[in-house]
Formats: sequence, C-alpha cells, structure tokens
Amino acid sequence: MSKPSTSRRDFLQKTAFGALAAGTLAACGKADANSQVPQAAPTGGTMGAHETAAGTVALSAAETMDAMHEKGVKAFPAKTALWGNQLLEPRIDKGVKVYDLTAKVVKWETEPGKFVTGWGYNGVVPGPQIRVREGDRVRINLKNELAESTAMHFHDLEVPIDQDGVPFITQPPIKAGDSYTYEFTVPNAGSHMYHSHHNAAKQVGLGLLGAFIVEPRQKTSYDNADVDYVMILNDGAHGYTLNGKSFPATEPIVAKLGQKVRIRYMNEGMMIHPMHLHGMHMTVIAKDGWMQPAPWKCDTLNIAPGERWDVIVHCTNPGTWAFHCHILPHAESDHGMFGMVTALIVK
Amino acid sequence: MSKPSTSRRDFLQKTAFGALAAGTLAACGKADANSQVPQAAPTGGTMGAHETAAGTVALSAAETMDAMHEKGVKAFPAKTALWGNQLLEPRIDKGVKVYDLTAKVVKWETEPGKFVTGWGYNGVVPGPQIRVREGDRVRINLKNELAESTAMHFHDLEVPIDQDGVPFITQPPIKAGDSYTYEFTVPNAGSHMYHSHHNAAKQVGLGLLGAFIVEPRQKTSYDNADVDYVMILNDGAHGYTLNGKSFPATEPIVAKLGQKVRIRYMNEGMMIHPMHLHGMHMTVIAKDGWMQPAPWKCDTLNIAPGERWDVIVHCTNPGTWAFHCHILPHAESDHGMFGMVTALIVK
Amino acid sequence: MSKPSTSRRDFLQKTAFGALAAGTLAACGKADANSQVPQAAPTGGTMGAHETAAGTVALSAAETMDAMHEKGVKAFPAKTALWGNQLLEPRIDKGVKVYDLTAKVVKWETEPGKFVTGWGYNGVVPGPQIRVREGDRVRINLKNELAESTAMHFHDLEVPIDQDGVPFITQPPIKAGDSYTYEFTVPNAGSHMYHSHHNAAKQVGLGLLGAFIVEPRQKTSYDNADVDYVMILNDGAHGYTLNGKSFPATEPIVAKLGQKVRIRYMNEGMMIHPMHLHGMHMTVIAKDGWMQPAPWKCDTLNIAPGERWDVIVHCTNPGTWAFHCHILPHAESDHGMFGMVTALIVK
Repeated sequence: MSKPSTSRRDFLQKTAFGALAAGTLAACGKADANSQVPQAAPTGGTMGAHETAAGTVALSAAETMDAMHEKGVKAFPAKTALWGNQLLEPRIDKGVKVYDLTAKVVKWETEPGKFVTGWGYNGVVPGPQIRVREGDRVRINLKNELAESTAMHFHDLEVPIDQDGVPFITQPPIKAGDSYTYEFTVPNAGSHMYHSHHNAAKQVGLGLLGAFIVEPRQKTSYDNADVDYVMILNDGAHGYTLNGKSFPATEPIVAKLGQKVRIRYMNEGMMIHPMHLHGMHMTVIAKDGWMQPAPWKCDTLNIAPGERWDVIVHCTNPGTWAFHCHILPHAESDHGMFGMVTALIVK
Repeated sequence: MSKPSTSRRDFLQKTAFGALAAGTLAACGKADANSQVPQAAPTGGTMGAHETAAGTVALSAAETMDAMHEKGVKAFPAKTALWGNQLLEPRIDKGVKVYDLTAKVVKWETEPGKFVTGWGYNGVVPGPQIRVREGDRVRINLKNELAESTAMHFHDLEVPIDQDGVPFITQPPIKAGDSYTYEFTVPNAGSHMYHSHHNAAKQVGLGLLGAFIVEPRQKTSYDNADVDYVMILNDGAHGYTLNGKSFPATEPIVAKLGQKVRIRYMNEGMMIHPMHLHGMHMTVIAKDGWMQPAPWKCDTLNIAPGERWDVIVHCTNPGTWAFHCHILPHAESDHGMFGMVTALIVK
Repeated sequence: MSKPSTSRRDFLQKTAFGALAAGTLAACGKADANSQVPQAAPTGGTMGAHETAAGTVALSAAETMDAMHEKGVKAFPAKTALWGNQLLEPRIDKGVKVYDLTAKVVKWETEPGKFVTGWGYNGVVPGPQIRVREGDRVRINLKNELAESTAMHFHDLEVPIDQDGVPFITQPPIKAGDSYTYEFTVPNAGSHMYHSHHNAAKQVGLGLLGAFIVEPRQKTSYDNADVDYVMILNDGAHGYTLNGKSFPATEPIVAKLGQKVRIRYMNEGMMIHPMHLHGMHMTVIAKDGWMQPAPWKCDTLNIAPGERWDVIVHCTNPGTWAFHCHILPHAESDHGMFGMVTALIVK
C-alpha cells in the first residue's frame, strides 16, 4: 500500500494534527513554575496582526513568527488538487503489462494555492507509480504532447541497450506529437525510477519522472512490510518537494503501533537530502534496489541525486513524528516549516 | 576525555607547532641540489611587506601568499576567549541528572579578534557537552533568554513524543522569558545531539546546539578509547567551524604513539563536509550512534547535515597531522589555511 | 591497462558512436503507428539553422535543441590535444623508482577548441598516473616552474610526517624555481592521489593533481580485472571534467562482453558527483583504497571531494552505455550533453 486512501486522508486532514497534537499538548504540560515568568516585552521589529475574539491585535515579531509556524502545522496535511505517485494499473495484452503514459504540460499545485508549471506524465508530478514483478513482460506506450522531443530512461533496470532511452545513442528522440513504445522483460528487482533522458536537467526538473518498483520473484519479509511507501525527493523549479508536494501539503505516513514501514527514498533532484526521522531509527536494507550485505541503522540518511535507498522503520514509539530533510533551509524558515517536511504518525 | 586541559593547551599553544614543526623542518631537509636554483624573479602583482631585522622589505605576491600561510600555521592553536563543547556536570536530584541550560545571545570569538553574534546555551557555541549513560533519568531545565520562542529537540534520542521538542506538534513553543523542563529516561546509546527545533535554520545556524553523548550499559573496547573527542562541524553565520572555532583557533587533538582516539563527528551545518585525516586511516564504527555491522576503513569521511559518524584512529604514525575538510574552499585560500582545519598530534 | 592505446582510440573515434549507434538505431525501431502523427507545429521561440543538401533551413527551437544534442553525441569521443592520467614509467636508481614531475602552467584543451589555463604536472591535467607496488621505494623529484610556491601531498599514503607535504608544518614551501625531493617506502595499497597541499583550493582546482595507485603485495582477483580504469572527477576552473576532459572529449571505457572492469573513482573537486552507469550495476569493493568488509551493489555512487571508491562492473550487457554524473546540470543542458558524461562500451 503506497498511500492512504482518500477517505483515510480526509480523516487525517481533519484530525491528525488537530486531535493528535491537541492531545499531546494537553498531556505533556511539562512547563515548570518558571514558565509563569512574564513574557519578555515585544522586541519591536516587524509587527504582525492576529485575529482574536477581541478583534485584531498587534503582534510582536516573535509572536508573528510563532503564529506563522502554528498556522503551517495546523494546516498539515493541507489539501491540494491532485496527487502524483499513485499506483497505475496496467492493461494486460496477451500477458504483457501495458502502461500508457503521456508527457504533457500540467499546472501543478505544490501547496494550497501555489501553482507551478510542471511537465508530467499523465498530468501528475511525480508520474504514476509503476509496480511490476521480476520477469514480467512490460510495454510502455509513451505519447509526447510536449512542444519538444523527449525519451524515457529506466534508471537501474538492466534492459537491452535499445530500450535504454538515450537519444542519438540508443534511439531517436521522440518528437513533439510522436509516440514511442518501450518493451522488455523486467530484469532486476528493486526500487527503480523512470524519467526523461533528453534535455533532462530541464525535463526531469519539471517533473518527467516516476517510481518503477520491481517486486522480487522470491519475496522476503521486507516485501511484506505493513506499509510500503515511496518518497521521491525533488528540489528543482517546483521548490523542495516530497512526492511533488511541499509542506503543509505533503502526505503523512500512517502506521499502527508495532507495524513495519518500508520507505523507498528516491532522489530526482540536484542536491543531497539527508532525511531525518524523529522518534525511531531506520534500518537500511537496500541501495539502488540492491540488498545491502547487512542491514544497518541510522536516523539521518543522506540521499544523493539519482540514488534510491530502502529502509524499514519498526513503529515502536507512538506519536506524530516530524520527518524532514536535515538541511534546515530545505525545511524551515522564520515563516514556519515548509518544503521537505512530513510526519510519520504511529497510532 | 574530550579535550586537553587548559595548562596542556597552553603548553601546546607555545610549543606544538613551534617545536614540532621546527624539529620536522630541521629533520626533513630533502631539498636537493636543484633547490639552489635562484628563485624566479618577483612576478609583480600584489605586493606585501615583511618585517625583518633589516627593516620592512617589499614582498612579491608569491612571498606574501607564503607569509600569510606561515602566519596562520604559526598561530595555531590560537587563543580565543571561551570554549564550547565542554563537559557539563549535572546536579543530582533524587537520582535524576539535572542540567540547567539557558539560551541567550552571546558575543562569540571564532578566531582571534573575530567576534560574531551567536545564540548559545550557557553562553557558549556549541553548548556544553552532555554525557550520560543508557537508562539514566535526565532532566533538562531550559530557560529562554532570547527575544523569540525556542524549543529543544534531542536528535536521535528515542524519547516519548511529548519530549520531542517540535512546537505545535509535541509542545507549545517556549516563549521569550519562559522556561521549560524536559525529562526522560535515556533510551538509546550513542553519539547524539541536542538543538533547537524552532525557527531552526536560524537558531541552530546561530549556535543553539550541542553534543548529547550516551554511553552504553555494556561497554565495548571502543568505549575505552584513550581519547574520546567530539567534533561538531558547522558552516552557518559563523563561517566554517569545528566546535565553534575556525583555524587557527581550532583545537588540536593530542594522543600518544600507540593510543586509540575515538572521534565523534556531528554535522550541525547545511553542507556536507568530507573530513580528511593525514597520516593514518580512520576505522568507522558507528553511524548516528548505531554500530555499523562491520567496521570499515577510510581516510576521508563524508558527513552530511544531521549525521553523526564515530571513528577510531589508531595512532601509529608520530607527527603533527593536518586534519581538514576536503572541500578545499572550506579550508584554504591564498590567505592561508582557515575554517575547518585542525591537527591530530601524535607524540 | 588504464586506457585504450592511440590506435584503438582512433578506431573508436571513427566508429564507436558512428557504427554502434547507427546499428542500434536501425535495430530498435520501436516507434509505433502513432509516431506517424504529424509533428507539432514549430513553437516559435529561438530558431536555429541547419545545413542540408537542400541548403540552409530554419529550425524550430525544438529541432535546434535536438540538433545540438545530436551533434554532441556524434562528436564523441572528440579528439583534443593531449591526455592526462597516462602511466608514467619510472627511472630505476639503485632499486628506487624515480619519478620526475614538473609543475608548470599549461594551456589545456578540455573539449575541441576550448582551451583553459591549467597548472599541471608534466604539462597535463590530471598529472601522469603513478602505479607502484606496496613496499616499493619511491622517489619523486618535483620541480616548481610556477610563479608561486607549491608542495606535494600523498593523499592517504601513510608516509612519515616529513614526507606529508604540508608547508610550514612538515616542510618549507617549494619556492618558484626550486625543486624538492620526496622519498619513501610505499606503505599502504589502494587507489590514492597526489596533489598540491599549498594554496590548494587554487592549485588543485587548476590541475595540480594525479592518481597514485598502489598494487598490493598479495593480489586478489580484483587486481586482475580485465580493464583497470582511473576516473578523476573535477569541477573547478576547468568546468565539469572526467580526467581533465569534458564531453564529448571524454574517453569511453571499452570492454568485451563478459569482462570485468575495475573503475577507481577519485574526486578532486569541490562538489559531490553521484556517478551513474546505465545498463549494469557496479559492485563497490573499496573506499579510499581500503577494502570494504563486504562488497555491495549500486548503480549510482556518490563520490565526495577527497574520496576514492573502487567498483567492479561485470560487463554482461552489450551496448554503448551512458555513464554520467546524476546531478543533471553537471551533464546536460538544452545545448546537449556536456561535462561529466562518458560511455562504457561493451562489445
């Protein structure tokens, strides 16, 4: 299961940070006697305004900063128009799994009211998630509705050279208006990606990318994780995003106490992103779809452009845990948390 | 032992690079006959001036560059006003280890005569070093003397959610002038950190951070290293620093021949820093406080923001070994070495 | 064998992308019926011009972009004046392997017609490749024909302190016009580097660097790889380069089907470069010249400044495989592929 269903998401939207956070705040109350010390006088500086029952009151710079932080957290998970990275069911044609993908311009909402120009597959950023099994026969019909040529590369799939998707080396570019078909038997299991390999700094930067997950013939316990979540990191023209959305419009990961969550990180950007999970460690099991010789633990995992890393989180600690890039300017400013921030909610 | 005592440092200051370097220079003398070739004529360009017994003489650009390099090395380790990252002894209250920390503005000297505005705990950058044992009960009284709210996060300590320190998710922000108390039983051993998690890109950037070391219940040979050194990397408003100081004011690590030094790297900055040790390799034993499945060796260890890495150096090679970030513009310019440079001195 | 011989390179130059790519294009032909859809009308924007038998015709922006991409690929591997990183045979003096290196200014051609100012050893960037055996006695005579001082550091060679090459710590700087001799018994095997350690952000950035490979006393199967290739990454004043050249002037790696290629990555730049190989995975065997405790697999390997990583590629998939940095702006623009791009050709 790669993401909560809509109804579950709506539920979260109404309750997750409302109910959970309120409960937490009521329960913690650790402020000691000293917290009764009167607050420091407003320090001047930039002033904000805050609507209360008593009307609009002036806020100090510090209060304004807090209010902006609170507003962001309260809005999470904020609703936006569309989700990318949703599972795409194939058509079956004589045993071949067929996926139809169209590359075209899309108006993409990264956070409520913020629309950017994206180039997406099937109108979403990231493109639909493809999930197949080792040994499957797969066909991808790519229609190019962009105004320039494109091509598709299957990053880390060890396909024959004529399916590698590099214009002028393995195929001609797919001209504006044209279509092209890729077909191959899925070679190697793991967390892979598909993306443009033509004018790619621009085309991938604008959103021509998606997850290509290959489940192994021989399943291991890792393949039966309770939650299997793909998290695609990006930092291009759309700002700092997780699966095409910026906080507070990012999607929380939800699990029950005791469950195991598998996270498949994929970096489609230009910068490293050391992802940090609060409250529980991550056990790293695979790099670029290949099992590590031995699992190892961390709380902050540095993910470089083009890399994928798979981790398991054993959800032993209940709460709403912050989960963010630890390059802090990718996650927070004095206007509050933004960009590469989400939460792992353990109920 | 996390750092040399003051008297030892004073000794080093007077002798380390003076005596050691002089000895080395006298001993090496490998320049061959060709070195008698007259030096190339001054190349014009920027000229400097150099005080000699004979008075002030004009220097070529090349001589000026050398003189600036020499001056920096000779000044190492240069004295500055205060050290951060010093062990903070707790008060014991009915079996609880109590630490009092105050967040406030500090005038911080990163190198001789260079003062920056820092936000520090107890007046230092990094804050005092906390060292406890797995299973200890710990209480942290945080007083906020800043002009804006703050909060404290225990990075990688798997504490209950209400102690996680994220405003509006796990607690209210601690307003200017207020205090707040965190209390928990220390869950997991390892090299951890504490830092602000509110307006953190700014607050951590200015110095609200420190080391939180948890010694394991079951000690291993690694926990009995002869020298146990915490090195906090930063690259924010204070420039490129190691434990809050820039070369030549950084602190050398000192060990005897045959000893083992454990270095606990912590990156609290926004950039990677691949730390390179000359003369001896490092054996990597832990990531983010978790033991690696098998130790592995390197001479340059890439440390990303939020990461911690523990390494062991077996001091088998006597000398004063340069030790620096290998992103060279973080360590050297034509004005000499600066920023993220220190030395490992093996006597 | 570190690189193809000249005649082999000439052959490649004439045929590799010509013949191979043509064969591939003829063979793949997967465009389906939809590709007969008329191309989208030219979108206006920047127009190019294209010479055909029929004369000069105007090109749409999209066609111009494709034409620039095609031109780059067709030109690969483009001829430039000189190669760095070529094996330097030592003189033998009473059992000592003697290498004469001269640091001087060089006009360096990074791609056809693009000349940059380099500071190189023996007139090339990177400097000549040194390959010795663990336990060899080695002497390096360094002549400084630059206008400023220099010094040489043997990165990760655990030499005695007086051979470490850090001015004012382990030796005096080598003045313009002077010479200096380093001599030591080679201590530790692996993929190492030599480079300037004086004003190094500038001097290494301009090219004073090279590979120093130490073969182990006890060879393993990895040391008998069919192809042993050193790839030095750089990103300084010369642009994004692999062994001192930018695509299309980079050198392809050539192997026969079934062969094993060992690649020794070395990052002498200021940025990370996650190198991505198409079509086959890499098995990581060593970090900084030290064997990893267990080999592990990946397709994208993040290499930080100062690091070296050794990988083995088992060439099981025939074709001309793109091989590039996956920070896409280091490898491609709308003007086509450039910088850190090469190919692994499996015949």
